[in-house]
Amino acid sequence: MAARVSVLGLGAMGGALAAAFVSAGHPTTVWNRTPGRAGELVGKGAEEAPSAAAAAAASPLVVVCLATYDAVREVLHPLGGELAGRTLVNLTSGSPPSARETAAWAEEHGVGYLDGVVMTTPPGIGTPDVLQLYGGPRAAFDAHRGTLAALGEPVHLGDDAALSSVYDMALLGLMWSALTGWLHGAVLIGADGPGGGVTATAFTEVARRWMRTVGTFMTTYAPQIDAGSYPAEGFPLDLHLMTMNFLSHASELRGVSSALPDLLTALTSRAVEEGHGEDSYARLVEFLRVRDKD
Amino acid sequence: MAARVSVLGLGAMGGALAAAFVSAGHPTTVWNRTPGRAGELVGKGAEEAPSAAAAAAASPLVVVCLATYDAVREVLHPLGGELAGRTLVNLTSGSPPSARETAAWAEEHGVGYLDGVVMTTPPGIGTPDVLQLYGGPRAAFDAHRGTLAALGEPVHLGDDAALSSVYDMALLGLMWSALTGWLHGAVLIGADGPGGGVTATAFTEVARRWMRTVGTFMTTYAPQIDAGSYPAEGFPLDLHLMTMNFLSHASELRGVSSALPDLLTALTSRAVEEGHGEDSYARLVEFLRVRDKD
Repeated sequence: MAARVSVLGLGAMGGALAAAFVSAGHPTTVWNRTPGRAGELVGKGAEEAPSAAAAAAASPLVVVCLATYDAVREVLHPLGGELAGRTLVNLTSGSPPSARETAAWAEEHGVGYLDGVVMTTPPGIGTPDVLQLYGGPRAAFDAHRGTLAALGEPVHLGDDAALSSVYDMALLGLMWSALTGWLHGAVLIGADGPGGGVTATAFTEVARRWMRTVGTFMTTYAPQIDAGSYPAEGFPLDLHLMTMNFLSHASELRGVSSALPDLLTALTSRAVEEGHGEDSYARLVEFLRVRDKD
Repeated sequence: MAARVSVLGLGAMGGALAAAFVSAGHPTTVWNRTPGRAGELVGKGAEEAPSAAAAAAASPLVVVCLATYDAVREVLHPLGGELAGRTLVNLTSGSPPSARETAAWAEEHGVGYLDGVVMTTPPGIGTPDVLQLYGGPRAAFDAHRGTLAALGEPVHLGDDAALSSVYDMALLGLMWSALTGWLHGAVLIGADGPGGGVTATAFTEVARRWMRTVGTFMTTYAPQIDAGSYPAEGFPLDLHLMTMNFLSHASELRGVSSALPDLLTALTSRAVEEGHGEDSYARLVEFLRVRDKD
């Protein structure tokens, strides 16, 4: 039989989490500070607890998703006794220090603790492709992985509770960069394209195929970063820089902002000027670190 | 039996193309203006032609890969007679106008013409995951797709010969943006990470998984761009902007350049200030078009 789970906090995200557990067949207990949020969930089969303490006591796995870590402290701190021996999964958005602080509180009270982030908006919760990231003890993750799978694809990052918010920030930055580069490509190819421009839909089919290749470049470059050594393997920064200049120029010609290519060109130019023109693109990582307060 | 193919131009890329055809079992005729480049290929089974005309006459499919389109004109223009009725695949790097000019010359001389780009460096040629993009008549592409597959995965973009160089530029821009966002994430997570930092290798495993999700966002947003309508579906620009500010701040705190997040934030701020805070990220495409020469 599917494991019982409790969800504290029924905002847009918390409500979606609870609904996904119910849909996956988990007996689900829900609680919200402001009453009146549980009606629809109860209609689908969830049980509403009369208090946070009752909700915490109801299940071996307690998921909390509130607006802020201040709210988390306020709700959880009186529940040390009820939570002892259970696993608490915190999906409230926060910073690395607040994650570590909550982990320390949990450890003091004998509560298993995973700090997580689900990399989607509420409507995406429960679709199998959605990535969920967790920091905290591996044993707690393994014990509840099956239940958490109702929300998406759970990934364990490591033992430190701060890891999920650190990864969240780094992955969102990657997302914005990739999406903006993709938008730039879509407008560039639409502006000049033959027959009135290539549609974004047509471009995106090829772009997604290309992103698989870009992913293999990341896998090639990652150990270079870890080793601090950047062999070019046929595509040195000199050559990147030359082609980047074409992109800035083509953007200007076609009435597309060259701000993004100009930034990339400036970064690459610095590395080439400092003598790294024969290195791979991964060398640029050293130029993303701020040195001498410049 | 595998189709015969000729390769004109044995620089680093042309030589890799010829070697991939030989490896895939295609009888391969090669020619290079400067003699002495064919030795290794002949050792593997290629035939060296005594002239460009002889190489062109040897095969139904003639692949040309030279340093510039000037060199392409110089080599091809005397060969109209030999090339008539054959298909010419031009993998020389160039611009949309030079691709269209070559296509027009080919049409005048009864030569089938595909203008292409192989999205890798010479060492990558012939690996099945490599993307090859072609613009030109569908029939010519279909007739030779099987032979071209020796170089990677061939994709037909459309009838216009200019499409391959237009896509090339747009896809390289996407690559640089994605790689730079990924490098930024790697240095951010390495700078602050617990236990002395997360390795780039560990981060990249999760980042590649995440890029699959980002790809689904692209597929959601592309028809929004084509329709000029940008419903947020749960993740509006307002919310992106708030989180972007955290990224800039976290970057500064950890000694990482905030230039890239600052650029993304400035772009998003403009859209929000102009009243699009409830739209999806795809709305930003309209802010990448330069308006009123600003």
